[in-house]
Amino acid sequence: MDYKRVIDEIEKEIKQYIGHGKVADYIPALARVNADKFGMAIKCVDGDEFVIGDALEPFSIQSISKAFMLTLAIKYVGEDLWQRVGREPSGNRFNSLIQLEYEQGLPRNPFINAGAHVVTDCVLSNCNGPQSTKETLLNFLRTHSGNPEVKFDKEVAQSEKDTGFRNEALANFLKSFGRIENDVHEMLDVYYNQCSVSMSCLELCRAGSYLANGGKSVVDNSQVVSESQAKRINSLMLTCGLYDAVGEFAFCVGLPGKSGVGGGILAIIPGHLSICVWSPGLDESGNSYAGKKGLELFTSKAGLSVF
Amino acid sequence: MDYKRVIDEIEKEIKQYIGHGKVADYIPALARVNADKFGMAIKCVDGDEFVIGDALEPFSIQSISKAFMLTLAIKYVGEDLWQRVGREPSGNRFNSLIQLEYEQGLPRNPFINAGAHVVTDCVLSNCNGPQSTKETLLNFLRTHSGNPEVKFDKEVAQSEKDTGFRNEALANFLKSFGRIENDVHEMLDVYYNQCSVSMSCLELCRAGSYLANGGKSVVDNSQVVSESQAKRINSLMLTCGLYDAVGEFAFCVGLPGKSGVGGGILAIIPGHLSICVWSPGLDESGNSYAGKKGLELFTSKAGLSVF
Amino acid sequence: MDYKRVIDEIEKEIKQYIGHGKVADYIPALARVNADKFGMAIKCVDGDEFVIGDALEPFSIQSISKAFMLTLAIKYVGEDLWQRVGREPSGNRFNSLIQLEYEQGLPRNPFINAGAHVVTDCVLSNCNGPQSTKETLLNFLRTHSGNPEVKFDKEVAQSEKDTGFRNEALANFLKSFGRIENDVHEMLDVYYNQCSVSMSCLELCRAGSYLANGGKSVVDNSQVVSESQAKRINSLMLTCGLYDAVGEFAFCVGLPGKSGVGGGILAIIPGHLSICVWSPGLDESGNSYAGKKGLELFTSKAGLSVF
Amino acid sequence: MDYKRVIDEIEKEIKQYIGHGKVADYIPALARVNADKFGMAIKCVDGDEFVIGDALEPFSIQSISKAFMLTLAIKYVGEDLWQRVGREPSGNRFNSLIQLEYEQGLPRNPFINAGAHVVTDCVLSNCNGPQSTKETLLNFLRTHSGNPEVKFDKEVAQSEKDTGFRNEALANFLKSFGRIENDVHEMLDVYYNQCSVSMSCLELCRAGSYLANGGKSVVDNSQVVSESQAKRINSLMLTCGLYDAVGEFAFCVGLPGKSGVGGGILAIIPGHLSICVWSPGLDESGNSYAGKKGLELFTSKAGLSVF
Repeated sequence: MDYKRVIDEIEKEIKQYIGHGKVADYIPALARVNADKFGMAIKCVDGDEFVIGDALEPFSIQSISKAFMLTLAIKYVGEDLWQRVGREPSGNRFNSLIQLEYEQGLPRNPFINAGAHVVTDCVLSNCNGPQSTKETLLNFLRTHSGNPEVKFDKEVAQSEKDTGFRNEALANFLKSFGRIENDVHEMLDVYYNQCSVSMSCLELCRAGSYLANGGKSVVDNSQVVSESQAKRINSLMLTCGLYDAVGEFAFCVGLPGKSGVGGGILAIIPGHLSICVWSPGLDESGNSYAGKKGLELFTSKAGLSVF
Repeated sequence: MDYKRVIDEIEKEIKQYIGHGKVADYIPALARVNADKFGMAIKCVDGDEFVIGDALEPFSIQSISKAFMLTLAIKYVGEDLWQRVGREPSGNRFNSLIQLEYEQGLPRNPFINAGAHVVTDCVLSNCNGPQSTKETLLNFLRTHSGNPEVKFDKEVAQSEKDTGFRNEALANFLKSFGRIENDVHEMLDVYYNQCSVSMSCLELCRAGSYLANGGKSVVDNSQVVSESQAKRINSLMLTCGLYDAVGEFAFCVGLPGKSGVGGGILAIIPGHLSICVWSPGLDESGNSYAGKKGLELFTSKAGLSVF
Repeated sequence: MDYKRVIDEIEKEIKQYIGHGKVADYIPALARVNADKFGMAIKCVDGDEFVIGDALEPFSIQSISKAFMLTLAIKYVGEDLWQRVGREPSGNRFNSLIQLEYEQGLPRNPFINAGAHVVTDCVLSNCNGPQSTKETLLNFLRTHSGNPEVKFDKEVAQSEKDTGFRNEALANFLKSFGRIENDVHEMLDVYYNQCSVSMSCLELCRAGSYLANGGKSVVDNSQVVSESQAKRINSLMLTCGLYDAVGEFAFCVGLPGKSGVGGGILAIIPGHLSICVWSPGLDESGNSYAGKKGLELFTSKAGLSVF
Repeated sequence: MDYKRVIDEIEKEIKQYIGHGKVADYIPALARVNADKFGMAIKCVDGDEFVIGDALEPFSIQSISKAFMLTLAIKYVGEDLWQRVGREPSGNRFNSLIQLEYEQGLPRNPFINAGAHVVTDCVLSNCNGPQSTKETLLNFLRTHSGNPEVKFDKEVAQSEKDTGFRNEALANFLKSFGRIENDVHEMLDVYYNQCSVSMSCLELCRAGSYLANGGKSVVDNSQVVSESQAKRINSLMLTCGLYDAVGEFAFCVGLPGKSGVGGGILAIIPGHLSICVWSPGLDESGNSYAGKKGLELFTSKAGLSVF
């Protein structure tokens, strides 16, 4: 497959979609990002890399961090994680409390905010306090992205905290059902920080390459998770990774993916490659408008989808 | 009406119901209350008072405080309050977040917890900080109960705070919809304290006498609220004051009332009297089991209900 | 009390409110009713009657029939009825299926449509088929209204049936939970007919006079239900009788009442009188706009409310 | 890949799982099916076929028919179908009315019952009445299964109708929102019949082979739907095809699939094969217990899943 040609074509065709949608504006650091950015990067399982546009520019990874934190939780506790969080799509907004109340505080899946809180809480319980937990995540991302400088954006983390009333509500609600083991504020400190991580498309597709490669990192050849665990993380990304637009994304793109309100989407073509797009304008479901279009073009041109 | 005879009869007949139900146990100070307590006190609009059982023993008034805080809010902002909180029964548990989410953070009524948060927030906005707000409430209760020693129970307030994850969730959720004007923690500080007030049946029926007397306190003859406002507070107590058992209470007792998980119920017979019962065992809806039975006996024997 | 003067004043003051709101238009027979109609009639427990405006003109009683069908069910099965239908306000639209699903088909109260279906089913089970059930209701209304000509409006009943998809849905849903004993279509036949009854304000306040008079009809002095049962029907009307505006109605009017989408409202002042208003324009909750205003004026001028 | 060896191994290993779960018993014809049945059949895109166990015995395909009816609807109206039905997992039971009410009668996806009603209604609108619609479906299934004798089971269809209160409720509810174009009873007649079709595992995997083969039937080489449409039907099966266990099925099996309460599951490995299993015992989500286990064993042994 001539991926170089495919993404060069995309670079031209995507222009009409860039700038559409609405940049996240609930915190200043996200609101001031230039809406016209677009980047795409590919990491093939044979090691090849391809980039277009702003693929080297760092952006706020936000909820994409949930895929990596989930990986850490699975490394720590394996199948036991599923005692604390479900594996079904929610059919509701990512931060809804309704379903959570009917289901006694058991979050539907690890990618809605409530589930991500439980996942972060699980990692926190297996590290030595919030500081150690944050370092564990950074080390993971630095190692697998190949960039030892990956870091939290302190301004973003602080803003998330200052405006995080819905996350405070969710976390306290979970705590009231006995679903959070640690101090609510310590868990949320880790959570706000993980969302604030800055990475580029290229770094993200490198960091997620183990999901395309049977659990083995393409960057350093280490076995991050087992082949079976990688498949399962992919299945969760496909059924639950795109907020309340998972069906739409599966229908149009046909790949496991995880999006963030910073405008990034990390997607996986098992056995072939990991791919990351970034464009800040969001559609109504909170997913990158041009990013999703870029992925549609890619799977269509490359003839690769899981279906 | 020979109220003396009526309540003396009740004192005998109620014995079979005392001790039924479950004492609130989510905080130690409530859990250790003797389940066999039962008191009833009446304050007639002509000033007569009648008591039986443990009517002079202070207990934790808990949500009964919501009726008094509502009175303060109405004194401060009048009809404007209804821009911030509804007047309809919720049909749901007192601390449910579901309805709140569907209705964009506008609480159904001032007696569910979310509505009480907004009412407390409103009073807080009209006082000079949390300390002044708490003193305002205490002064109100001291003046109208005739007991200058009414006070907060610090242990209860602290326990409420330590275990208040659901209230934290509700308040942050309201804040995320822009429904709380003040700092969430300052509002909750007032809220936890108002719930912790200790008063006896006699003090409570005195303090609520203005609701039976066209808005004018029977204790000191001051016009607390207008006649129309008193009627409206009564209507809210009847349609929303008994958690998710308002229909049942209206059906069986037929009076406006406000209950608390401490086992107290304050009820009003407009034009006649205010009545307060206390017995710590709670039914499934969180209302005093023997207290409700006592009120049923009273309206039945006295032939007085609003219907 | 000079009721004559009170309602003569209302006749003048109400003019500004008549014609507001929206006439029910889901069936032709309702849609073509003149929006400018307004009538009010009072039946005092001493037998006095007062009327203004269009108080003698028949209109479609619609859901007001639920109060009479409830009375019949209570006469047939007494307290057993409450095994099949609840007594709590629903907090939801009168024809919502949501609550019903969460509560396994047990309707919240006898006045939401689902509850009314169960009540009608209960009466049907105690009569000899749909025809006999319909005659039983007509005989009841004829006897207590003093008009032997009260009848069903066949056009309305047919239109209700032709457009009754939501009622079909509710009734089949109830049946799927085992909550309907009879054939769904036979039950709905009775239901559509009971809603189609034509009566005037004067006939309705006469027919409901037993609710103001301790269960005894003021028309023929027969004991329709016991005093206790009358109080309880009143309590249900106050907490559940005005669709999702029961709190608002209790707050503004302060009386037990039952409304219908034909624009009628029957209200009760226990111990004093029954009162019926009619004006076809409906507010957003489906209650008569001018009718509710008329009742507000009445309780305000007469100084009579249950609070 | 030596599929023969793979399924022969499965035939031995599956024995421990057969008979677990609960046979559907809401209608007699399903209740009397032998719980110990197990069959599996494979149709490869190169035409090879493999069978074990009861793969040639006809069973009630029930909801698997929804995949074929969806195919017909897409053939008739293409993308326009998505104006009438969504593409998102529901997160709720297959026959829930709650979500439908909140979303104004727009069903979440074509595989929950409400969505299937709309799909059937769409096909009905494009045929010449219910009889013609039923023949259209039968012809489709006969052609692509290679069995000209495929037929409806009249007893099953009648039983579905006799007990179909929930479907009546759903369909009337949809109609009340204007979402059903045809007569409710005609649509349901088609629906009950499509669910009653009897087919064997082998017939079903043949009939569904176009989904594994880019839209082209492996049986007669006709292009049933376009390649892109086949991918999209697969994506819908993966995200919505297994009732409220889609996440679980994706996690454990990792294939697009559609199950029925008769105990059948049709699954697709795009580019490789279609596979059908049958075993009547159902798990709590209503999916075949041993059938799902058989598919897990298959993807695990064959090393084939979409992830």
